[in-house]
Amino acid sequence: MNYLDHAATTPIHPEVQKAIFEAMNHFGNPSSLYKIGRLEKKVLADCKQVIKDELHAENSDSIIFTASGSEANNLAIKSIIAEFFEEKGHLITSNIEHPSVRKVFEWAETQGFDVTYLPVNEEGLLSADEVAAALRPDTRLVSIMTVNNEVGSMQPIKEVGEVLVKHTARFHTDAVQAFGQEALDVSELQVDYLSASGHKINAPKGIGFLYKKSSAPLLPLIAGGGQEEGLRAGTENMPYIVGLTEAIKQMAARRPEQTTLNKELLAYLQEQLTANGISFEMNGYSESNSSHVCNLWLKGLKASQLIILSDLKDVMISAGSACSAGSLKPSPVLTALFGEESERLQESVRISFGLGSKREDIDEFIAIVKNLAKRQK
Amino acid sequence: MNYLDHAATTPIHPEVQKAIFEAMNHFGNPSSLYKIGRLEKKVLADCKQVIKDELHAENSDSIIFTASGSEANNLAIKSIIAEFFEEKGHLITSNIEHPSVRKVFEWAETQGFDVTYLPVNEEGLLSADEVAAALRPDTRLVSIMTVNNEVGSMQPIKEVGEVLVKHTARFHTDAVQAFGQEALDVSELQVDYLSASGHKINAPKGIGFLYKKSSAPLLPLIAGGGQEEGLRAGTENMPYIVGLTEAIKQMAARRPEQTTLNKELLAYLQEQLTANGISFEMNGYSESNSSHVCNLWLKGLKASQLIILSDLKDVMISAGSACSAGSLKPSPVLTALFGEESERLQESVRISFGLGSKREDIDEFIAIVKNLAKRQK
Ligand SMILES: Cc1ncc(COP(=O)(O)O)c(C=O)c1O
Ligand SMILES: Cc1ncc(COP(=O)(O)O)c(C=O)c1O
Repeated sequence: MNYLDHAATTPIHPEVQKAIFEAMNHFGNPSSLYKIGRLEKKVLADCKQVIKDELHAENSDSIIFTASGSEANNLAIKSIIAEFFEEKGHLITSNIEHPSVRKVFEWAETQGFDVTYLPVNEEGLLSADEVAAALRPDTRLVSIMTVNNEVGSMQPIKEVGEVLVKHTARFHTDAVQAFGQEALDVSELQVDYLSASGHKINAPKGIGFLYKKSSAPLLPLIAGGGQEEGLRAGTENMPYIVGLTEAIKQMAARRPEQTTLNKELLAYLQEQLTANGISFEMNGYSESNSSHVCNLWLKGLKASQLIILSDLKDVMISAGSACSAGSLKPSPVLTALFGEESERLQESVRISFGLGSKREDIDEFIAIVKNLAKRQK
Repeated sequence: MNYLDHAATTPIHPEVQKAIFEAMNHFGNPSSLYKIGRLEKKVLADCKQVIKDELHAENSDSIIFTASGSEANNLAIKSIIAEFFEEKGHLITSNIEHPSVRKVFEWAETQGFDVTYLPVNEEGLLSADEVAAALRPDTRLVSIMTVNNEVGSMQPIKEVGEVLVKHTARFHTDAVQAFGQEALDVSELQVDYLSASGHKINAPKGIGFLYKKSSAPLLPLIAGGGQEEGLRAGTENMPYIVGLTEAIKQMAARRPEQTTLNKELLAYLQEQLTANGISFEMNGYSESNSSHVCNLWLKGLKASQLIILSDLKDVMISAGSACSAGSLKPSPVLTALFGEESERLQESVRISFGLGSKREDIDEFIAIVKNLAKRQK
């Protein structure tokens, strides 16, 4: 098995799997007052502390566990929409956000909010100046993703945070593709909210969190019991919370190596494509890209065919955003970057690296590309 | 360890724990188009089929996996509120619902909906006639829990369903305490929506589902990717979905025995209390109660003391609803049944049975009660 689709989801780290199995032996409800309940309450607090430390958050800030990155995004953005539901106002986002951000903004428009979708350039980037220019006195929220899931471009979150310091608008970042991969410091980034997801960093699908600065307001999406400081009802998923925490520790420990490896693999991939006479370009790429995602325009090669051929050889890559649709519609991100008419839309694939990725994986992929290129001649 | 609080949460069944561990070896994203993705898509469909079969649902009906019973409740009720947000209208519920239902209705009131909170009698029951009498032409939704989590009373859902057949109002039931424990047939009950949670039936905390009849509308609470037929975004939690399905199979297989055991244990508990001269009454009890929850008024004995003494001996029971607050405030359910002034509020505890419960557990509890009773003399 050759898995080159770590941006879609990741294998579970053996230590995470072990931690979850072990945690399932303890079933206390953190809301119960007796011993096994109090024990879980302590574990819950300890896990939040690990995440706060990883994010360099203040102790008074909150970590709200969710079932996904999508839920964290919805929670933050809908909270602002709810807060200003009577007054309405203006919202800013980018035109390459994940559907769990984009669709919430589209819904906000139907409810009477004005939304600015800032375009990105061909490197997949927007600038803090563009955010500053789009700001209005009634701007309620700016939501800009940290790293794009299809091309890997990393936005200037810190610079946008700087711009927003003097404005009342709240600042949210969807860091699902960045958290764990990149060292993030929320006080440096000056964000009010940050979303993350476990299954991008070798924890299971079904766990994520929203970071919230202590001064930022939040209204629950799921009302009920007093869990998560009353901000998200539902008995806490302790095994996955423990598992996510373990995944974060693992990821943080190997981040420097993994980043170096990712860069080596990317260089090797480009080298091998060139050596084999494959004409290509990187989509949405710049020096600041996150190292684990790359998007390749393989000129003249049909992505759909490449994906099928790869599947037959158990090589897993994707076109478009695998994590949302499961269909081969042209990628909205590439469309945003290059326009609807670009041949890139049909000829691009995403390769993404992670735990266990190695040169041989690239070799197998290159062999398939060569094969397809030969056939097309 | 003597766990008599299965209505708060339950230990994970060893077969469920094994199934989850095993499922973590497969990490494909059900939305991915290659083999390991397609495989998970198939597993997902198979799990839904098991649940539909358990519920006697139609094939065209939907099972939407959620992260909790609370989320399932919010999803169903808020969807109706959203659908009628412009027109407003009337909603009906009971006065003993779980906070994840009650709080949504309270919020609906602040948004201009009229809400009728039907009272229950001292047996914890309301009648279908009362629902019929409360109906208005503009009633949008009736939400009545199947089994109450504090006293175990089982509402006449089938009869209420019968009443609603001729009305346009939708019918939701919070079956978190009933699903698995009781054989439920959604076509017989004639409900449009039914909520359930895994951690009440020996699966982990953090997984639940909403059943939806095919003709019933639903608007997502979490927007984003097309998962769950576009009704709940977020990459699917495959290990827990597999685990929940295993828990359902286990529960269905041992339901007759477990029910018989629960009844024996309850009879034994009452017998022993009487034999030891403890004056008591059952709160919210009738012949139709679910067999796994019972609420005891131990006359003259302080529940708070009993719970602390029990905790010291590793006997776990609860007062009030452990699964929501973690505080010893007087139970809103007992308050609804007996009024704010009733001494029952301070002198009642909940005992609930499940996997592994046995007579010796009761003996230990009785010893503690005797001890407290002696001290108070
Ligand atoms: C009747 C009832 N409804 C809903 C819930 C909430 O379920 P969950 O903890 O999965 O959110 C509970 C218990 O917690 C319950 O007993
Ligand atoms: C940038 C980004 N945001 C949000 C999500 C959603 O995360 P989840 O699948 O945990 O809902 C994803 C991937 O699925 C993503 O890549």
